[in-house]
Amino acid sequence: MLIVGERINSSRRSIAEAIEKRDRAFIEMEARSQAEAGAAYIDVNAGTFVGKEVECLTWLIEAVQDTVDLPLCIDSPDGDVIRAVLPMVKRTPMINSITLEPSRINTILPLAAERKAKLVALCQAEDSLAESGEQKLNMAQRLVDRVMAAGIAPGDLYIDPLVYPLSTNAASALATLEAIEGIVRNFPGVHTICGLTNVSYGLPARKLVNRTFLVTAVARGLDAAIMDPTDRQLFGALRAALLVANQDEFCMEYISAFRAGRLES
Amino acid sequence: MLIVGERINSSRRSIAEAIEKRDRAFIEMEARSQAEAGAAYIDVNAGTFVGKEVECLTWLIEAVQDTVDLPLCIDSPDGDVIRAVLPMVKRTPMINSITLEPSRINTILPLAAERKAKLVALCQAEDSLAESGEQKLNMAQRLVDRVMAAGIAPGDLYIDPLVYPLSTNAASALATLEAIEGIVRNFPGVHTICGLTNVSYGLPARKLVNRTFLVTAVARGLDAAIMDPTDRQLFGALRAALLVANQDEFCMEYISAFRAGRLES
Repeated sequence: MLIVGERINSSRRSIAEAIEKRDRAFIEMEARSQAEAGAAYIDVNAGTFVGKEVECLTWLIEAVQDTVDLPLCIDSPDGDVIRAVLPMVKRTPMINSITLEPSRINTILPLAAERKAKLVALCQAEDSLAESGEQKLNMAQRLVDRVMAAGIAPGDLYIDPLVYPLSTNAASALATLEAIEGIVRNFPGVHTICGLTNVSYGLPARKLVNRTFLVTAVARGLDAAIMDPTDRQLFGALRAALLVANQDEFCMEYISAFRAGRLES
Repeated sequence: MLIVGERINSSRRSIAEAIEKRDRAFIEMEARSQAEAGAAYIDVNAGTFVGKEVECLTWLIEAVQDTVDLPLCIDSPDGDVIRAVLPMVKRTPMINSITLEPSRINTILPLAAERKAKLVALCQAEDSLAESGEQKLNMAQRLVDRVMAAGIAPGDLYIDPLVYPLSTNAASALATLEAIEGIVRNFPGVHTICGLTNVSYGLPARKLVNRTFLVTAVARGLDAAIMDPTDRQLFGALRAALLVANQDEFCMEYISAFRAGRLES
């Protein structure tokens, strides 16, 4: 299970403030705590700084890669921003994200191919929403075709079927689970990834919904998640889900997490 | 989702003590708290009182049905015990449980048919274990055949695919999920049910594993569970799982549970 640590995102107020004040110690702390909690990539996002995104993202990238020895997940919908910051990224990054929207895929795909980056691809197009499992799977097929044609290896592609809020689209979690199962079956080597916050939009006790959705997705074969590994309850749910999904040989990781005091019963 | 409240079971020390002392107030409190927490049936089990099971179960049945207006789930592997207590059970009960073992199925099946009782049937036989999803499904088929032949309606049958401990059988949760999906698909009208404690045997933080397994099972179509509805975290996980599984119209039950202070985020 690959965890992309999501905490360094300017949509969080504390991160936006740290970026504004150039509070490097705060960002370093956020990077370090996620690395210690098991993140394999550290996501960096400065998307709320319209017009200054490149400058802010550059500062974030420097702060994080001077602090932890982990690759970054460069998070922007804007291909020009990604092109501008990519040269300063030291280790092979993950790029988050492309969709089938031409403006996005046409700019980002060649950059990802050139850099041999990992690539997050969302089941989203300009002209249509993918709501049912079948629609999501069809869009995944189109993404696979485009990404493979650009010379990117299947193992570098992480498809996010894109769950919609259950408050307005009650069947969306089931559709997403169906899509995950279909992607695992139809596209050997291609990974599946999910963000967790969409699903609970508009509902109370959101973290409970988020971790419940994560558990069901892991049981269908999800092998990566954009999440906060420092959230104890979420991390515990993930470890238990991997046990249920037979992805934890001899229960070793689960028992280690328990011994480290990271699980609550 | 049908909840069978499992707390009144003599394998729990406090219940065994209450039975020994004939502490009726304690049993009444356990019945009432489960009814208030959403149980549809109250399970009663005196199985540890070997040689005195009928006498103890009789006392439990009286105590519970004088206290709450819910049907009972009569829980014993012993057909003779069930035959002895059934006449005093007021409302149509659930009987927990039969297996394919002849001694058990041959005694209990006619009793259940005569009483038009609900019936829990475990995927277990005398001569073989059902470990894989396919084996569990084959055993479910044999159970369905026997139960239907006895004149019991599909809607009165609750099949438990029987999960084994993940500590010794790492693939058992996945096999059980596969079986649940198969039963839902192959036997329209037949229900699926699970006990939750087996899965975590031998592991630390057992309740975390139990509720994680419940969440994954609900997402595959499980529609009944033998569980403790007064366990806040378990109940919250169940409510969130029903949301994810699109079994909660307009999120009403989830939001009500939140308003009642029964969910933690």
